[in-house]
Amino acid sequence: MILLPNPRELLNGNEMVTGGFRELISLKETLEIIKHNTKIMPKEEIPLENAIGRVVAEDVISPIDVPHFRKSAMDGFAVRAEDTFRVESFRGEKLKIVEKEEITQGECVKITTGEPIPRGGDAVMMVEYTETIGEEIVIYKRVAPGENVIEVGTDVKKGEKLITEGELLTPFLTGIAAGVGLKKIKVRKKPTVGIISTGNEIIDQNQKLEIGKVYNINSRVLCDLFKKYETIPKEMGIVGDEWEELKRKIKTCIEGVDLLVLSGGSSVGEDDILFKVVKELGEVLVHGIRIKPGKPTLIGKIGEKLLIGLPGYPASAVANFYLIIIPLLSYLLGVEFSFPIIPAKLKKKITSTVGRYEFLTVKLTKTSTSYYAEPMWKGSSAITNFKESDGFIEIKEEIELINKEETVEVKLFV
Amino acid sequence: MILLPNPRELLNGNEMVTGGFRELISLKETLEIIKHNTKIMPKEEIPLENAIGRVVAEDVISPIDVPHFRKSAMDGFAVRAEDTFRVESFRGEKLKIVEKEEITQGECVKITTGEPIPRGGDAVMMVEYTETIGEEIVIYKRVAPGENVIEVGTDVKKGEKLITEGELLTPFLTGIAAGVGLKKIKVRKKPTVGIISTGNEIIDQNQKLEIGKVYNINSRVLCDLFKKYETIPKEMGIVGDEWEELKRKIKTCIEGVDLLVLSGGSSVGEDDILFKVVKELGEVLVHGIRIKPGKPTLIGKIGEKLLIGLPGYPASAVANFYLIIIPLLSYLLGVEFSFPIIPAKLKKKITSTVGRYEFLTVKLTKTSTSYYAEPMWKGSSAITNFKESDGFIEIKEEIELINKEETVEVKLFV
Repeated sequence: MILLPNPRELLNGNEMVTGGFRELISLKETLEIIKHNTKIMPKEEIPLENAIGRVVAEDVISPIDVPHFRKSAMDGFAVRAEDTFRVESFRGEKLKIVEKEEITQGECVKITTGEPIPRGGDAVMMVEYTETIGEEIVIYKRVAPGENVIEVGTDVKKGEKLITEGELLTPFLTGIAAGVGLKKIKVRKKPTVGIISTGNEIIDQNQKLEIGKVYNINSRVLCDLFKKYETIPKEMGIVGDEWEELKRKIKTCIEGVDLLVLSGGSSVGEDDILFKVVKELGEVLVHGIRIKPGKPTLIGKIGEKLLIGLPGYPASAVANFYLIIIPLLSYLLGVEFSFPIIPAKLKKKITSTVGRYEFLTVKLTKTSTSYYAEPMWKGSSAITNFKESDGFIEIKEEIELINKEETVEVKLFV
Repeated sequence: MILLPNPRELLNGNEMVTGGFRELISLKETLEIIKHNTKIMPKEEIPLENAIGRVVAEDVISPIDVPHFRKSAMDGFAVRAEDTFRVESFRGEKLKIVEKEEITQGECVKITTGEPIPRGGDAVMMVEYTETIGEEIVIYKRVAPGENVIEVGTDVKKGEKLITEGELLTPFLTGIAAGVGLKKIKVRKKPTVGIISTGNEIIDQNQKLEIGKVYNINSRVLCDLFKKYETIPKEMGIVGDEWEELKRKIKTCIEGVDLLVLSGGSSVGEDDILFKVVKELGEVLVHGIRIKPGKPTLIGKIGEKLLIGLPGYPASAVANFYLIIIPLLSYLLGVEFSFPIIPAKLKKKITSTVGRYEFLTVKLTKTSTSYYAEPMWKGSSAITNFKESDGFIEIKEEIELINKEETVEVKLFV
């Protein structure tokens, strides 16, 4: 006859595993350990035309003024503003049209938008306010000095910082770099990430689906997530829950990558095997994190390289991708990967486990006044958790309950 | 002596061009004309591992149930629920551990999460509520039939529609497709888009920047924008404002692409040259749209292919990309490209031209209660308009003024 402890107590901060207890650490501590053990990727110089999406590795300084010459903002005539001051309503003033690079009193030059202002000129008279008679124009409006003229460096000054180290190159930034004449740009090398699915029950899509077997989802979903975050994912297959096989696989695979990510099968022993293998090949930094969903996640270091052991359930693995791997990639690439945040009212009450940092997928609906967020999480085992979700919310460790209609911050999947 | 009309009247709905007036049409009419003249891209079947981001061309139906066998949601023992009904507090009940594919009264099978439930079993007793003594377990809790059991098809039913034609493949969707065993998927072929910059003043980044010359920005920014929208952009160089040269260039380039996009230089004559060239090679569908920014944009059709003539100013060309080209690509690919929308309060009053549909870049700042949107537009000639913007707002034709603190919908650049 034994007295059993309340399982809730077991799970609060600690988790029972076969053979005993293991201390879980917080997400914050986990990310600090990861940061401390991550070395930023080296720089490489690449042609600007291949740079979209990449992380800038050095500030980009403009080598020129933009515009680099005084130009016209309008179609019309470049004039000396003072020549127009004599115009009064209903009495035009004549100017002589010349084709010169410099104008003097009483002269003007026909000019189109973007063309250089001739020396001596300091304003542009719009074509609408002129009448051309032979080699002269009659003007019907006064212009102030500088009117319709775009000065040198109005848009960008020579020596100005255009792009900051750590920015992700958008089309707008590559466009600006092209606009100041750059052909190459220094970016962070993309890390190569090896992806391995583990578990005796996991089969690939070419194998026959028998009772007890499950198609490999994690390699696909992780690989495709990694593609969105400036990395080069490499699918490295499936490995069973067998000590020697796993060890050999990890040893071989970690050679050619910057980061190795495994996702466990769902059998109970597998995380212990991984723990022992990593301990033998290197160092276990973290084993078990106070997050939900999350069967004990493992973070190890083999040589200078990190290895992440994610849970086997696809939904848990993806949740951990957002909570753990994206921050890791931010450190690795020296960039801040961020999500658009939409404030939304909760469509129904949420209860959460105190002591666990929780990840929850939600679907957004928009009314005329605000957004509503509806929790979509169907449990870690569901492969469809993310399908109809627009984003996720994070529930801090100390929160037990969020009421209906309370506002939460939804991070969008983009 | 002439009486000049008020220039505002000239611009309201009509625009004066060299040689006369031209009627402008609304954005809505423009998009209808484009839709009417766009043929959806053909389908192609590709391996699932290359499918991320692509547009699904046929509904994806699940060929299997997920899970496809009854499985355990927990680590513990598969039991017959009725065998546990005799348990009372402080009085355990013994079951015999067997290793069989079927259990009968008084028997149980050790099971780990994800493993198949043996025939005869209908519930799983969590390991925490058991004590193992030799070849028997003592159980201390009753379980209901179905407890901790995941039934066949709980997550996905065989024949269920998993992905709908026209969806963009996210990692979550490719993951689900992998999870039901798919190796290939039918998607829309990516359209090839040719990009040409026109204007005598435009030089490429290998040329010397002289007074009156401007580096080619549009090819870079358009090309990189097109990359984000499931197309294959092809930079096709720069062409001057010369009739025969432009005609030859268009004739050659349109052969190898699905869509040809030109951006004009800033000289006044160029859109007229384009107009005449397109009229000779095919048909001009639209010439001038009531949008701002937007020097007259041209939409032409040569054979079965569309040609878009964008304004020369990079900021105007990009605005037109958002207003005109993204909808065009939506029709071409059979997908709805959408933007995350954030409601935000205006940081300062905006005035707008009645009769023009206006595109305005804004920067967002977040307070604890809401977002604020600050207009960032510095005029069409600025190459830095988009650099610090988070998104854009659209101001409908009939709107003249939006007051400070009024709520606008910001479409995010993502």
